[in-house]
Amino acid sequence: MPNSFGKLFTVTTWGESHGPAIGVVIDGCPPRLPLTVEEIQAELDRRRPGQSDIVTPRKEDDKVEILSGLFEGRTTGTPLAMMVRNADQRPGAYAEMREKFRPSHADFTYQSKFGIRDHQGGGRSSARETIGRVAAGVVAKKLLALAVPEQPVIVRAFVTQIHDLAVPPEALVQLPTLTEVESTAVRCPHRAMAEKMIERIKAVRAEGDSVGGVIECRVQGVPPGLGEPVFDRLEADLAKAMLSLPATKGFELGSGFAGALLRGSEHNDRFENRDGRVRTATNRSGGVQGGISNGEEIVFRVAFKPTATILQPQPTVDLHGQPTELIGRGRHDPCVVPRAVPIVEAMAALVLLDHWMRQHAQCGLFKF
Amino acid sequence: MPNSFGKLFTVTTWGESHGPAIGVVIDGCPPRLPLTVEEIQAELDRRRPGQSDIVTPRKEDDKVEILSGLFEGRTTGTPLAMMVRNADQRPGAYAEMREKFRPSHADFTYQSKFGIRDHQGGGRSSARETIGRVAAGVVAKKLLALAVPEQPVIVRAFVTQIHDLAVPPEALVQLPTLTEVESTAVRCPHRAMAEKMIERIKAVRAEGDSVGGVIECRVQGVPPGLGEPVFDRLEADLAKAMLSLPATKGFELGSGFAGALLRGSEHNDRFENRDGRVRTATNRSGGVQGGISNGEEIVFRVAFKPTATILQPQPTVDLHGQPTELIGRGRHDPCVVPRAVPIVEAMAALVLLDHWMRQHAQCGLFKF
Amino acid sequence: MPNSFGKLFTVTTWGESHGPAIGVVIDGCPPRLPLTVEEIQAELDRRRPGQSDIVTPRKEDDKVEILSGLFEGRTTGTPLAMMVRNADQRPGAYAEMREKFRPSHADFTYQSKFGIRDHQGGGRSSARETIGRVAAGVVAKKLLALAVPEQPVIVRAFVTQIHDLAVPPEALVQLPTLTEVESTAVRCPHRAMAEKMIERIKAVRAEGDSVGGVIECRVQGVPPGLGEPVFDRLEADLAKAMLSLPATKGFELGSGFAGALLRGSEHNDRFENRDGRVRTATNRSGGVQGGISNGEEIVFRVAFKPTATILQPQPTVDLHGQPTELIGRGRHDPCVVPRAVPIVEAMAALVLLDHWMRQHAQCGLFKF
Amino acid sequence: MPNSFGKLFTVTTWGESHGPAIGVVIDGCPPRLPLTVEEIQAELDRRRPGQSDIVTPRKEDDKVEILSGLFEGRTTGTPLAMMVRNADQRPGAYAEMREKFRPSHADFTYQSKFGIRDHQGGGRSSARETIGRVAAGVVAKKLLALAVPEQPVIVRAFVTQIHDLAVPPEALVQLPTLTEVESTAVRCPHRAMAEKMIERIKAVRAEGDSVGGVIECRVQGVPPGLGEPVFDRLEADLAKAMLSLPATKGFELGSGFAGALLRGSEHNDRFENRDGRVRTATNRSGGVQGGISNGEEIVFRVAFKPTATILQPQPTVDLHGQPTELIGRGRHDPCVVPRAVPIVEAMAALVLLDHWMRQHAQCGLFKF
Repeated sequence: MPNSFGKLFTVTTWGESHGPAIGVVIDGCPPRLPLTVEEIQAELDRRRPGQSDIVTPRKEDDKVEILSGLFEGRTTGTPLAMMVRNADQRPGAYAEMREKFRPSHADFTYQSKFGIRDHQGGGRSSARETIGRVAAGVVAKKLLALAVPEQPVIVRAFVTQIHDLAVPPEALVQLPTLTEVESTAVRCPHRAMAEKMIERIKAVRAEGDSVGGVIECRVQGVPPGLGEPVFDRLEADLAKAMLSLPATKGFELGSGFAGALLRGSEHNDRFENRDGRVRTATNRSGGVQGGISNGEEIVFRVAFKPTATILQPQPTVDLHGQPTELIGRGRHDPCVVPRAVPIVEAMAALVLLDHWMRQHAQCGLFKF
Repeated sequence: MPNSFGKLFTVTTWGESHGPAIGVVIDGCPPRLPLTVEEIQAELDRRRPGQSDIVTPRKEDDKVEILSGLFEGRTTGTPLAMMVRNADQRPGAYAEMREKFRPSHADFTYQSKFGIRDHQGGGRSSARETIGRVAAGVVAKKLLALAVPEQPVIVRAFVTQIHDLAVPPEALVQLPTLTEVESTAVRCPHRAMAEKMIERIKAVRAEGDSVGGVIECRVQGVPPGLGEPVFDRLEADLAKAMLSLPATKGFELGSGFAGALLRGSEHNDRFENRDGRVRTATNRSGGVQGGISNGEEIVFRVAFKPTATILQPQPTVDLHGQPTELIGRGRHDPCVVPRAVPIVEAMAALVLLDHWMRQHAQCGLFKF
Repeated sequence: MPNSFGKLFTVTTWGESHGPAIGVVIDGCPPRLPLTVEEIQAELDRRRPGQSDIVTPRKEDDKVEILSGLFEGRTTGTPLAMMVRNADQRPGAYAEMREKFRPSHADFTYQSKFGIRDHQGGGRSSARETIGRVAAGVVAKKLLALAVPEQPVIVRAFVTQIHDLAVPPEALVQLPTLTEVESTAVRCPHRAMAEKMIERIKAVRAEGDSVGGVIECRVQGVPPGLGEPVFDRLEADLAKAMLSLPATKGFELGSGFAGALLRGSEHNDRFENRDGRVRTATNRSGGVQGGISNGEEIVFRVAFKPTATILQPQPTVDLHGQPTELIGRGRHDPCVVPRAVPIVEAMAALVLLDHWMRQHAQCGLFKF
Repeated sequence: MPNSFGKLFTVTTWGESHGPAIGVVIDGCPPRLPLTVEEIQAELDRRRPGQSDIVTPRKEDDKVEILSGLFEGRTTGTPLAMMVRNADQRPGAYAEMREKFRPSHADFTYQSKFGIRDHQGGGRSSARETIGRVAAGVVAKKLLALAVPEQPVIVRAFVTQIHDLAVPPEALVQLPTLTEVESTAVRCPHRAMAEKMIERIKAVRAEGDSVGGVIECRVQGVPPGLGEPVFDRLEADLAKAMLSLPATKGFELGSGFAGALLRGSEHNDRFENRDGRVRTATNRSGGVQGGISNGEEIVFRVAFKPTATILQPQPTVDLHGQPTELIGRGRHDPCVVPRAVPIVEAMAALVLLDHWMRQHAQCGLFKF
């Protein structure tokens, strides 16, 4: 099921950018969770077009409707279906894309795979698909926060780099608060750098161009034991989750690529007894060892390429393989990274919740 | 199924480092493929301990036995089971690990998760588990090579970095041959750099320390259309496959993390008609667009941390959370990267074959 | 995923009887299939309440909307989402069921499992859930019919027994036509028996009681080779599909339970060469041998219990375990069997299509 | 994965009748379960050839080896791999089957599907495959028995019919003890009928013929709440499990096919408060309502056809479609039903354990 994610808390998304609607079905949701449509909406608003002056101006309120699985304010354990109607469709705006392949877009590959494609706004390849992920992520984040009341799991993503503007690592020792993240349109908690980033995005947009960046995500409160020994390692599922997002090009956990530069004696995280618990003195492991969480902060980073849609003429070919030129048009994000922050959080939450449920199923039922 | 990988060509591995045996079951293998035990063995020998003077001297011939699914030299379409008996077991050598958690190993997390662990040689967390992956990878690579005889898929991995010794990118324009890769113990096709890398590994080992590195993998001959639109993007499954390997910390496709430094106008791969086919002028996409292969070379890199096992005393805690010291012993690789090359290839082959079969199932049966 | 069915052509249903809507998502649908909303609607009308005077009079038009996966009249290969709004909701009619468990209904078990339930009209346990199955079945049946134009697969179910009124087997040698099946409200192609059945249903309803029956399903045109050797035998998946329908109590293939009364020499289906093809002289196997189709007609029967909802007072207990009495009310089917005919066909089509795609994936891509 | 069964407690079997070995991998087994090879062996001995004078005399000790997943007498939570070497191989005995299709066997369908088959003893279609199921069933039964010590789940299957010799239902009110079941070679707890059954089997065998029969299985101690609302209903998964066994032709739960003969007012199981628990006065539901267990005894029956292998000449066709005659030879069971009893128990245990773990994962982790 290529449009589903998760083994026990399974999320299935459907919908095209300019079709009637976008939606999601969550199967396996624990019953009796209090949930309101307002909670879902609030997070969709973080992902919504038109939320600031550095994102696409497409007019979409993204108003969500809960269609099933909720009864008198609580989940029932049956599928939770949610839907957002597409509103601002401009079929005419995409006439050019019917015949021409946009460079570094999914046009050519969809056509090659399926022999047909909905060319309007990228159809299924549009980032509007992630509406369903964000809606499901709200449920997952809420469950994670409630699972162990005394130690709520907190999932926090934020922008650390736009183009070559990167927050210095020493400025990120503390986990930023949600308020700090949301205080700038670019969702970078380092205010000075955030201002430069916003300027950069605006400058690039003015040239009809685009930029990429890096998002860091940290998760606090994850108990030791989540993740599976072999193929379903926690970092493997996180990597898959992140690389399943549009425009991503890389993933690294803890020390990441820079870890290759260290010796074992420098890289190893020594165990120590802190406050009566087994802890590590450092966290180059990024909170995961042998594929399983060790109780430390989970830390990973995701690289995003610059938006493929640019407002400059580009040479390309058409459906018949003939050379042609594409005049970029339409509403788009000059940089997808700020709006990707809640999506990264949603995917991280889905992975962690699913693994928690799996851990519980295998190791929590029987006492020997 | 945490110990299975692949939806249609499904690989399930089992076995512990010092248990009776290590094995694999392949379910869904196409029937009638000619296959010999020698083909499997040849690739296992690339992964085998004791193959050179820069890897662990553990004495394992890793002789494989095919237990089912083969009849008169051809696969039958039923499960292909293969097994390697563990030979060089030294239970006594691991007495210390029964009580002490090795830093940056899976000891603590397995104990936390399961409440029990086979401490000998890491048990299930040992890289010996990858024997089954490599054996399965042989079958996958052979199928990929035979699928389209005129355009065989070639999967080629090689070492590009050990510690801070990195091959300059301009030296890697051409795909290295297998002979070039295998010509040095470190599996780096750049001979001058390979020699430095070997020296570095030996020097580090002499200090009882370890180093990490980077493997690049390229796949040629992949037709356009493999990969799925949303969660099962080709790069998502490749990322999961790579992060499911022991000691990995990062994955990047095409431009990767460096892609964030480019503008869209610099990053986009323009389409052109070359030799009657739609091709891209550059390949910053790494052969995948919108999650689906575009027919260009698939290019990705995997970061490996330095081996956690070092022969230096390290502070740690024991099963009871009490501080103690671990005196490293035992046979280990001072750098896992050279032996990981065939494993990276195996995992890449498994992902690509599985997606090819999926593509065929959905888009190849019906003609409208 | 308890609300999904099928490995490659995967159907996920959602929705409650008296929630906002009922829906389905099909993942893995082959691309480019011509499809109209009218085709879906026509089959939903076969399942619809109020279609005759022997079914429930609940007023539901069951108008379907296609929300995604269709572009300019053809499937795109991306998820096909469909939805029917619930119209005739009468929350007040179910006030009694909030506190009382209806005998032989899912009230008690849902409450036990989830600790919460939508009591209105059975919530998720309502047969309205099968709307999604029928809609998906239309797509599956159409694909089966088009796959091999010269030998279209035909899936035909019909009623053979209501209460103790059973069609004699000798009257069913020929596959009934769709017109014959649809010519009576009870969907029994034996007209004389159908009239008695209809009388029986009306008589029983007049007493506030209900009856069950048996549906036979036959599938013609299935090529040899569908089904898997071990757990996913064709009859195993058909059995699961049928027992997943509300009110079913039994499944048998070919000779079924009566087969136990024969000797091997009587039961074996001898092979013969007929018209240049390997055929069997008899079909006690029901078209499946060793779990795999043999090219003969697939024949199976499904037993349905009498509707649990009856309009007679019944002793029961309430949410607090206290004895009470339930006064049956509401609109219901005195016999679910006639409306189950298109649902049985839909499930059979889903199983066969999925296995065809699986067969193609494993055995159709590689030529050795 | 056609050779795997179960979502959380996943069993994968491999091996052919006359290949080197038969085996099983269990993935997802809870950790720390005490387990010995003797426990596995004892149950395999119930399934073993040559155990009595009414089964096949093939000489197989079926000695099992545990290859992984067990450490110091307890499961580790990693894959539990087990293997039995095939001993009594007589390749020559099957020369005839290389070219000829045995009637009602899997020869023709395997050849049609895969274009190749291991013809010796049926290869993968042999009931020797069920060795792995029985071995896995031991683990599942043990877990079920230990899960709730005060109310251990007991899975008990027994023969109720051989050919036309059926135990009268009124003789089966009480659950037979294991001793009663095992006290006769035919595994029918009704001693007088058992003797007749044994005579019948011997008489039929003397004529080179075979017979079928019916097995009933009852499960006590299952808590309410196991099973899923829609596709994965408990009875659906039980039906699939049973129809996945060789030679099965039918499945019915509770009232089964006979239930169609009752009116709703006769069939409904009234709820009552008995000993402070919600119970049903009768059990026509067979312990499952709305797909979910209700705490009553789970009762189902499975129909087995007569063994297809008979020692009489039978007309058939060969690989080239030419008419020929098959002279039955070889060692076989004149009736598979007695040896199928432990296999039915194993499959029932696998289904129930898997659903218990799923129930726990979704509904047991979070308290709201």
